[in-house]
Amino acid sequence: MSILVVGSVALDSVKTPFGKVEDALGGSATYFSISASYFSPVKVVAVVGEDFPDRHVKLLQHHKIDVSGLKKVSGKTFRWKGQYLYDLNQAETLDTQLNVFADFSPEIPQSYRDSNYVFLGNIDPELQREVLKQVKRPKLVACDTMNFWIERKPQELKKTLKLVDILVINEGEARQLAGESNLVKAAKAICSMGPKALVVKRGEYGALFFNCARVFSAPAYPLDTVFDPTGAGDSFGGGFMGYLAKCGTLRDDDFRRAIIFGSVMASFNVEDFSLNRLSKLNWPLIRKRFEQFKKLTHFELLA
Amino acid sequence: MSILVVGSVALDSVKTPFGKVEDALGGSATYFSISASYFSPVKVVAVVGEDFPDRHVKLLQHHKIDVSGLKKVSGKTFRWKGQYLYDLNQAETLDTQLNVFADFSPEIPQSYRDSNYVFLGNIDPELQREVLKQVKRPKLVACDTMNFWIERKPQELKKTLKLVDILVINEGEARQLAGESNLVKAAKAICSMGPKALVVKRGEYGALFFNCARVFSAPAYPLDTVFDPTGAGDSFGGGFMGYLAKCGTLRDDDFRRAIIFGSVMASFNVEDFSLNRLSKLNWPLIRKRFEQFKKLTHFELLA
Repeated sequence: MSILVVGSVALDSVKTPFGKVEDALGGSATYFSISASYFSPVKVVAVVGEDFPDRHVKLLQHHKIDVSGLKKVSGKTFRWKGQYLYDLNQAETLDTQLNVFADFSPEIPQSYRDSNYVFLGNIDPELQREVLKQVKRPKLVACDTMNFWIERKPQELKKTLKLVDILVINEGEARQLAGESNLVKAAKAICSMGPKALVVKRGEYGALFFNCARVFSAPAYPLDTVFDPTGAGDSFGGGFMGYLAKCGTLRDDDFRRAIIFGSVMASFNVEDFSLNRLSKLNWPLIRKRFEQFKKLTHFELLA
Repeated sequence: MSILVVGSVALDSVKTPFGKVEDALGGSATYFSISASYFSPVKVVAVVGEDFPDRHVKLLQHHKIDVSGLKKVSGKTFRWKGQYLYDLNQAETLDTQLNVFADFSPEIPQSYRDSNYVFLGNIDPELQREVLKQVKRPKLVACDTMNFWIERKPQELKKTLKLVDILVINEGEARQLAGESNLVKAAKAICSMGPKALVVKRGEYGALFFNCARVFSAPAYPLDTVFDPTGAGDSFGGGFMGYLAKCGTLRDDDFRRAIIFGSVMASFNVEDFSLNRLSKLNWPLIRKRFEQFKKLTHFELLA
């Protein structure tokens, strides 16, 4: 089943201890889409400027991503400039130029409106609700958010949370949103705001999935080279939603595998700059790393 | 099979956001011993002062811990005073009084010398080697260390590492010891210093087990109340070594379960101050939480 994703498409300039790139393809919707495309058809809604290179659009199309919702408008593409020092968990933003993204108002093409799976990337919670108004009743709505919206638009965010099934959020932001340092209590508090389940992203420490009854814990894949963490969270989201849309059911087992597939995709993404690694995968590679996650976490019960 | 542990026995004064205790039973050997005692017989080597309350010795004996190596000497018992603020991962030391521990020179009683499993708690690496000189060839030697020894006695520590099978260490200290921020590379570097395997303790993020061929990742148990993290690492060590000594073999499966049992014991320990929780467990409770770790991490492979 197909996935509708709304978010940013950006040109990123990133410096890590291992190198740097200038104006490379980035943005939450981009990482999400290419990641999810290995599992399910993806329809993207985003905005770019006139300077957005055609080859990036072609890359999305090469992954069978429907770009009829990718609007090109006059002005410049959203740009983000950041660096990672030796702590690769922590991006330092050097510059943000919203450009055409400042006036982004997502218009959902007719052909997208019956998407069963909707992922609301990290944009203004008011815009996230605008998206939901334009789609028919989806089977599953997940959304991402960040400290910026938690601080600036807490009431709007809470209105949005009432409408989503799953919130996908960083650990620190989950604590901030709940106003609670204990993560288990924070998860309960967030679930009482609307979402039926919560995915907590913990960077190199993996991810936790909370629903009312259960917790599932996934590690990050231990890599000997983490090249560039940019987009890891959105790649995770793409693998997570991609697998759910692929399997079509929402059982406990499905969510567990989805969290692992999210972790698989994030682990590939950080192996190179931009979409360089994520855009060159194939199903056997993905499946092999999924199986490596099994070896990484498996233990036998006592007889 | 029995375990010999050498380490500190202390009186701790601890303050957390949830309360405080004064001169409560603590110390690495104490947490380790009581934790391990649920799995295997334990023989402890440590030193206390004349002020050490008899009831603490009785608590150890109640857990069938052999205290013939627990020396009482003139002077005061080692005291540690610390607090945890809202970040329960980070202890702030307010005061350390080594007292009788300053002149600790471990003497291994004859009846301890054929112990098959030896755990060298976090003491001076020279003393750790003194212990090894006094025991017959054990089946498995594990040791703990900390930033203090990495900074002050790096050469002595490296000599000790050549003699141990498994190093059990905190994540930050693993990075510090290896001089390498990437944990996978750090683990390889440490294994090249001598240990065949490495247990990396990550607090609320669980633990990783590295040996030359494999990595195993265990989460921490998600608790809605972490009361006092003091002793979590040593409780982990006790569950880990305790299970290995109980099962008697050293296969990959055994190490995986041992890491989970370590995580189980650490999760109980943080639920109350001092040894309050750890000293009141029983096998059905331990086994039940072990099974909960399975539910926490289990996912099915694809068909």
